[in-house]
Amino acid sequence: MMKSLDRFVRALRRLPGVGPRQAERFAAYFLRASQGETEEFITALSSLKQDIKLCPVCFAYSDTEPCTICSDPDRDPGQICVVEDPQDIEAIEKTGAYKGLYHVLHGAISPLDGRSAEHVKVRELLARVQQAKEPVREVIIATDPDSEGETTALYLADLLRGQVGQITRIGYGVPLGGDIDYMDEMTLGYSLKGRTKI
Amino acid sequence: MMKSLDRFVRALRRLPGVGPRQAERFAAYFLRASQGETEEFITALSSLKQDIKLCPVCFAYSDTEPCTICSDPDRDPGQICVVEDPQDIEAIEKTGAYKGLYHVLHGAISPLDGRSAEHVKVRELLARVQQAKEPVREVIIATDPDSEGETTALYLADLLRGQVGQITRIGYGVPLGGDIDYMDEMTLGYSLKGRTKI
Repeated sequence: MMKSLDRFVRALRRLPGVGPRQAERFAAYFLRASQGETEEFITALSSLKQDIKLCPVCFAYSDTEPCTICSDPDRDPGQICVVEDPQDIEAIEKTGAYKGLYHVLHGAISPLDGRSAEHVKVRELLARVQQAKEPVREVIIATDPDSEGETTALYLADLLRGQVGQITRIGYGVPLGGDIDYMDEMTLGYSLKGRTKI
Repeated sequence: MMKSLDRFVRALRRLPGVGPRQAERFAAYFLRASQGETEEFITALSSLKQDIKLCPVCFAYSDTEPCTICSDPDRDPGQICVVEDPQDIEAIEKTGAYKGLYHVLHGAISPLDGRSAEHVKVRELLARVQQAKEPVREVIIATDPDSEGETTALYLADLLRGQVGQITRIGYGVPLGGDIDYMDEMTLGYSLKGRTKI
C-alpha cells in the first residue's frame, strides 16, 4: 500500500468504531475530494481544537467560560446532574425534562482497568458542592447503567452523603448494559422522572 | 450547539455513510485527543492529498508515475481488468488470481443520474487499447454487478469489440446488487476464474 495512504488509514483507524473497510472508504472520499473541501475539513478540525475548551465549572466542552448552561440564570443551581461524557448532556437536554446544571466526570471509575476516582472529575465535583453559594438540593447521578457506571454511582453516593440534600440515580427506563447517549428522548425522559434515591 | 463543533460535525457528515451520531462520536474523539494526535491526523491527511495522484496509465491512485502495477515487468500487459473504483483493485489483488493490468473508470455510466461515458475514463481506455505496443488479448470487465455496472459493461463491450482479442465479464460468484470491494477473496477469486465472454 502507498505510504501516505497507509499512514492516513492508520490515523482514521483511531477514530471510535472505525474498521479497516470504513477507513479505506474515508480515505477514498478524501482522495476524490477537491483541495477546497479538504482544506475546509482541516480548518474545521483546527478551529474545533482551538475554540472548544472544558468549562471550568462543569467540565463540559464549551466555547465560552463558563459554558452557556452554567451561565444561564434560568437554570436551577440547586440541582447537579452528573454524567460520564460531554455528549450525555446533549442527550439529556433533548428530553426537556431537566432544568438544573451538569457535571461531567470524563469517564467512570473502573478499578479493573486501573481507573480510580483520581482519573475522573470527582474531586472537582466535591469542591463544587462544598463551595456552592446556595446548598445543593440534589445530585442526580446519570452515569451509564453498566458496571463502571454503577461503581461510580455508589462511590459518589458515599462521597456526597451529608454534603447535599439528596442523591438520586436515574434508573427507570434505561436498559442495563446501555449507553446514555444512545438513548431515545422518551426513555431518557422517563428515567429522569422515575429517578430513585440511593 | 457550539459553532466550531457544529462546523466540524457538518464536515464529518460528508464522509460516506457517516450519520449524525457517528459524526458526534468522531468530534468527541478529536476533542479528547491530544494536540499531537490531532496534528498527526492533519499531517497524514495533507500528505495523502499531496503525495497521491492518479496513475497516468490506469488512473489508480499512486505515489509513483506510473503506478507500481503498471510499471511491474512481471504483470501481463495483454490483459486489462476494468474496475469502477480504485479500491476495487486491492480487492482483486488479494485474490492472487490475476496478473494483468488494470483500468479504473472512476465511476459507472448511469444515464438516469446524467452520467454518460464522458464522465468516466472510457475514452482513455479506448486510446490505451489502440495505442498499446502489443495487442491487448483480453479486457476483463469487473464493474459492479448492479444496473450502472451492467450498463457500463455492455457499453464497453460494444466500444471495444474488434479492438481487443476478447472481452469478458466477471460473473460467477458475485451476488447481484453487491459491491465489488466488499467481496471476500474466495468469491472474487471464483468470479475471476468463472468469467464469461460477452
